[in-house]
Amino acid sequence: MSFSTEERGAPNTRDHRVYFKNSSGEFISPFHDIPAYANEAENIFHAVVEVPRWTNAKMEDVKNGNLRYVANVFPHKGYIWNYGAIPQTWEDPNHRDEDTGCCGDNDPIDICDIGDKVCSRGEIIKVKALGTLALIDEGETDWKVIVINTEDPEASDFNNIDDVRRLKPGYLEATVDWFKRYKVPDGKPENQFAFNGEFKDRDFAIKTIKSTHEFWKALVSKATDAGGLNCMNTSLSGSPFCCSAWEAKAVVESTAAVGAEDAIPTSVYKWFYYEK
Amino acid sequence: MSFSTEERGAPNTRDHRVYFKNSSGEFISPFHDIPAYANEAENIFHAVVEVPRWTNAKMEDVKNGNLRYVANVFPHKGYIWNYGAIPQTWEDPNHRDEDTGCCGDNDPIDICDIGDKVCSRGEIIKVKALGTLALIDEGETDWKVIVINTEDPEASDFNNIDDVRRLKPGYLEATVDWFKRYKVPDGKPENQFAFNGEFKDRDFAIKTIKSTHEFWKALVSKATDAGGLNCMNTSLSGSPFCCSAWEAKAVVESTAAVGAEDAIPTSVYKWFYYEK
Repeated sequence: MSFSTEERGAPNTRDHRVYFKNSSGEFISPFHDIPAYANEAENIFHAVVEVPRWTNAKMEDVKNGNLRYVANVFPHKGYIWNYGAIPQTWEDPNHRDEDTGCCGDNDPIDICDIGDKVCSRGEIIKVKALGTLALIDEGETDWKVIVINTEDPEASDFNNIDDVRRLKPGYLEATVDWFKRYKVPDGKPENQFAFNGEFKDRDFAIKTIKSTHEFWKALVSKATDAGGLNCMNTSLSGSPFCCSAWEAKAVVESTAAVGAEDAIPTSVYKWFYYEK
Repeated sequence: MSFSTEERGAPNTRDHRVYFKNSSGEFISPFHDIPAYANEAENIFHAVVEVPRWTNAKMEDVKNGNLRYVANVFPHKGYIWNYGAIPQTWEDPNHRDEDTGCCGDNDPIDICDIGDKVCSRGEIIKVKALGTLALIDEGETDWKVIVINTEDPEASDFNNIDDVRRLKPGYLEATVDWFKRYKVPDGKPENQFAFNGEFKDRDFAIKTIKSTHEFWKALVSKATDAGGLNCMNTSLSGSPFCCSAWEAKAVVESTAAVGAEDAIPTSVYKWFYYEK
């Protein structure tokens, strides 16, 4: 299974979009048409990389290509992992998580890939889950699943959250620090965490991914109210939102063609400092 | 006074060089022909940016354009300041520093610009000195002068080392950490510091720059043995190494023309971790 991307609109503008295609060159929804599992028996998941490590331009989520830039909070430069999401998952805003006591954030579940490779934006990788952090973002549960790219040369050494603690010392603490403070330069308060900011292990992470995959199934079969989410897809024959390749192409072609790149705002290069 | 650069050789290869020109478009030596002082009365110095913040490709020094890549030592990405040197300065390897007890490293004095702007490689900036760290690198004194670009919007708030400590909390500690550990991924030991790793203040930094400027004067007037250093220049009429613009041009034209960019080695994207 292979995927490619096509850019539309001028880079670094609000019109900029990244569209995904399947191996036949037909447009697909990265949220709905890329399988959650790369290998279900081995709990290997697909992930869509939205923000390569050390970069700042955030696609709001895989449903919506709008760009915004995350501030650099010292000592971090941009995102400190390849950041993305697992397709075919959904943090249901109508479901109160029994562990965190909060509802979902209406997005696919987010991943932080700790592999050495700096991925490209829109790259689809195969990952194994190592653990998860429960960010509480403005009252909503927003799981951040720590994963490693299965193609990383050291992937076989990483099988649970303690392997990250042992082999990449400081990375988990930096991850909590990053998520706690990344919105402060934009005038927002520090984020909170469930479980006192402690990471849950691999099995918990897999259980969480599986449950968000079930919420997604209800979403695309219209068993749950989509509440404005775009559920258009080209591969889910049982879904009322399934459309033809031709209809998908028409959606893409209604958007601005690729244009001249805009300059990245210089504010992206600022480093924000504050006492912890 | 304005300067520009011209690249020769293929980017990211050993042949790559950056040459400097004066405002008449004549080739000059950035080491010898750019004045140390931008404003002597106000102690404003010129600095040549060799490595922009958050990048890894190090020109070995302004005398020699060879590229090497510095490793990313977690949590740092590349160099954490705009790194460069003050022209017309020389850390004399024959002079034992009375403070550090070590001889100079045979290079111009290095600067770390803490301004917000990410400079371009080869950019000439005007800086004020705020303090200095005495790195002892394989037994040689290698001063790292902390400076701020005078064009930084907050430059007027920064006048001494304590302003950095107060306004950019964590930056000085990160600077010591960076210099201590940056060669460890290449199999070298941690670097040491004079003064127990404490920063000296603005006045000390200015005194150090001035004394390295005097050593440089002796170097280019052949009062000191240059020991293999290239002292060719086009503007120092009293110097036995002074040559014509025509001769300088011939040197540049003897080098490889600009070529197709080589790929940056993927090892540059690795993050190295180790316990402090």
